[in-house]
Amino acid sequence: MAGPVRVCPECGRQFEFSDPAWRCCGVPMRLAAPPAAPVPLGQLAGRPLTTWRYAEALGVPARWWQPATLGEGITPLLPAGDGISVKVEYASPTLSFKDRGVVLLLAQALAAGASRVIADSSGNAGTAVAAYSARVGLPAEIFVPSSTSPKKIAQVRAHGAVVNLVPGNREATAAAAISAVESGGAFYASHVYNPVFHLGTATYAFEVWEQLGGRLPDTFVLPVGNGTLVLGVTRAVAGLLAAGLIPSAPRIVAVQAANCAPLAAAWRAGSSMPLAVDASPTIAEGIAIAAPARGAEILAAVDEFATVTEEQVLAGRSELARKGWYVEDTAAVCWAAARAAGGSWGEVVVPLSGAGLKTGWTPASPA
Amino acid sequence: MAGPVRVCPECGRQFEFSDPAWRCCGVPMRLAAPPAAPVPLGQLAGRPLTTWRYAEALGVPARWWQPATLGEGITPLLPAGDGISVKVEYASPTLSFKDRGVVLLLAQALAAGASRVIADSSGNAGTAVAAYSARVGLPAEIFVPSSTSPKKIAQVRAHGAVVNLVPGNREATAAAAISAVESGGAFYASHVYNPVFHLGTATYAFEVWEQLGGRLPDTFVLPVGNGTLVLGVTRAVAGLLAAGLIPSAPRIVAVQAANCAPLAAAWRAGSSMPLAVDASPTIAEGIAIAAPARGAEILAAVDEFATVTEEQVLAGRSELARKGWYVEDTAAVCWAAARAAGGSWGEVVVPLSGAGLKTGWTPASPA
Repeated sequence: MAGPVRVCPECGRQFEFSDPAWRCCGVPMRLAAPPAAPVPLGQLAGRPLTTWRYAEALGVPARWWQPATLGEGITPLLPAGDGISVKVEYASPTLSFKDRGVVLLLAQALAAGASRVIADSSGNAGTAVAAYSARVGLPAEIFVPSSTSPKKIAQVRAHGAVVNLVPGNREATAAAAISAVESGGAFYASHVYNPVFHLGTATYAFEVWEQLGGRLPDTFVLPVGNGTLVLGVTRAVAGLLAAGLIPSAPRIVAVQAANCAPLAAAWRAGSSMPLAVDASPTIAEGIAIAAPARGAEILAAVDEFATVTEEQVLAGRSELARKGWYVEDTAAVCWAAARAAGGSWGEVVVPLSGAGLKTGWTPASPA
Repeated sequence: MAGPVRVCPECGRQFEFSDPAWRCCGVPMRLAAPPAAPVPLGQLAGRPLTTWRYAEALGVPARWWQPATLGEGITPLLPAGDGISVKVEYASPTLSFKDRGVVLLLAQALAAGASRVIADSSGNAGTAVAAYSARVGLPAEIFVPSSTSPKKIAQVRAHGAVVNLVPGNREATAAAAISAVESGGAFYASHVYNPVFHLGTATYAFEVWEQLGGRLPDTFVLPVGNGTLVLGVTRAVAGLLAAGLIPSAPRIVAVQAANCAPLAAAWRAGSSMPLAVDASPTIAEGIAIAAPARGAEILAAVDEFATVTEEQVLAGRSELARKGWYVEDTAAVCWAAARAAGGSWGEVVVPLSGAGLKTGWTPASPA
């Protein structure tokens, strides 16, 4: 197995797994192969207790995955009341779901013979790239906004990565990283531009399918900023459908913070492209993406969008803590949206995407 | 199934699972039943991806375990170089291995019909009891030393627990908690006094056994303060041996911080009781127990003790971060000890017991 091939949707040019190219004509690359599925449930039973149990759908050769994995995946799925189950995604090596995708980026960096790695992120993806780069022994340079908290910077540095503080907003940080990548020599470990990431996040849905005994819930409620989880899950659903392992597709609901909702606004307006929005700051910083590069792709993949207010996020986080799960603010958006839906989505699964210790704790105001 | 019975080793009196009594004649209670084992490997394959796959050895009725679990266990096991494999115990609902035991304490609180819960801990156990109490809907009161960091206190409060700050040392905190328990009405969720805790931590060894394909490593290297992990693992080993699922017992090495090593000192002196030591402060705060209540029991269960200096702990933590795992200081002690042993323990498994975000980061001085 040579690894997943990417294709430029504009010109159709294909890129081998070992090719470090990260863009072609401008629109982000996609995966060339149709969505794949795990082996049927009965054959999974004796597989290792790692995401390698879905090797056929991961699609990455063992020789690149094996040295890159830190033990991501196989997270708990538990009923949490009101027909909502939580998948505890923060029970992961770097305490967020991003690990599912980042492991494959570093597998690709190995396949490409990279000598160093660059990434840009204000949060969980940057931490994960620093950790997985350390795992494979590649020097990493992480570009972050200069406003990033000292605690996060300390963690990235502990992994041996160089931290580049960039003045200005998130877009300025991305631009600085891309400029460094363009100057040559480094592998761009981008959770936004590299569709290989979605092969990793697809395992989220495969696990739910396996944990529910070979079926999916009525509705997946997922956070959406750059769509890294949504695009993996919709691919997984398509793979399970194509393989005849599920009878029909569940509803995919994507949640944005009301303060920064270019995709929800587009969906309401019936637009196939994200709308330009006046984004306000939001505590759901992990999904505060005003101009998502894969906006059109996400809009095509999602059935329904929902937004949550800052107050709903805080109340949701508090509610989850009162049930035993201490999550970061962003990780409460799906719970908050599912609660607001009041059962109209049927049986729902929401991810608890990042650990509470990643951010501070702001008590919700009394309801 | 009625649940595990405890026995007082002094007078032999037995206590049903539903009995909330936490002490009898003074010596901590033990489990009455001989160590149990999981079902053989072939029968485990199709079991759920939770610790309930070891239900026969957990020994707790489903009706009490089910509402209490937050998804603890099934943590990764990965080779990390030098013949040492790491088990990523911080990939857990409250980010430490304590969850394995605390879930059973709260299951027992339910079985006992408790209306509230008390615990004392400066760290991971207190956080876990707060979270699992929230899970089962019981009000909790956590006694902590007044020096406990505001971040930890915020997390315990987020779970809805009342925090009682106690002036003085760790012993004063325990005394305050016990006094509150004695005044009546609360279930004492003690990871030190309640041997039911060890049924939970035994799953650590069952998982290693399953993940290695039905065998154990040459050596388990384990941190020891109050012995909550050591006593679970040695029980699991005894159960696997008795069931004929392993041919011989692995070596059990227990690690203490050189600054606070009452058990290592006793072992070196050939004593069956912990020695009174002049403990200095240590960054390995999770195992800084000067007078362990189960000292004699631990000394009888362990084959060998090792100690690590503060410098070794810091260097070990740094080394783990450079391999991709960001752990708290205490979680580096076993790695540091195994590295210092230089391969003389054969194939080794060490736990990464708690997440790095639980404490700050002190860079190791250059080697």
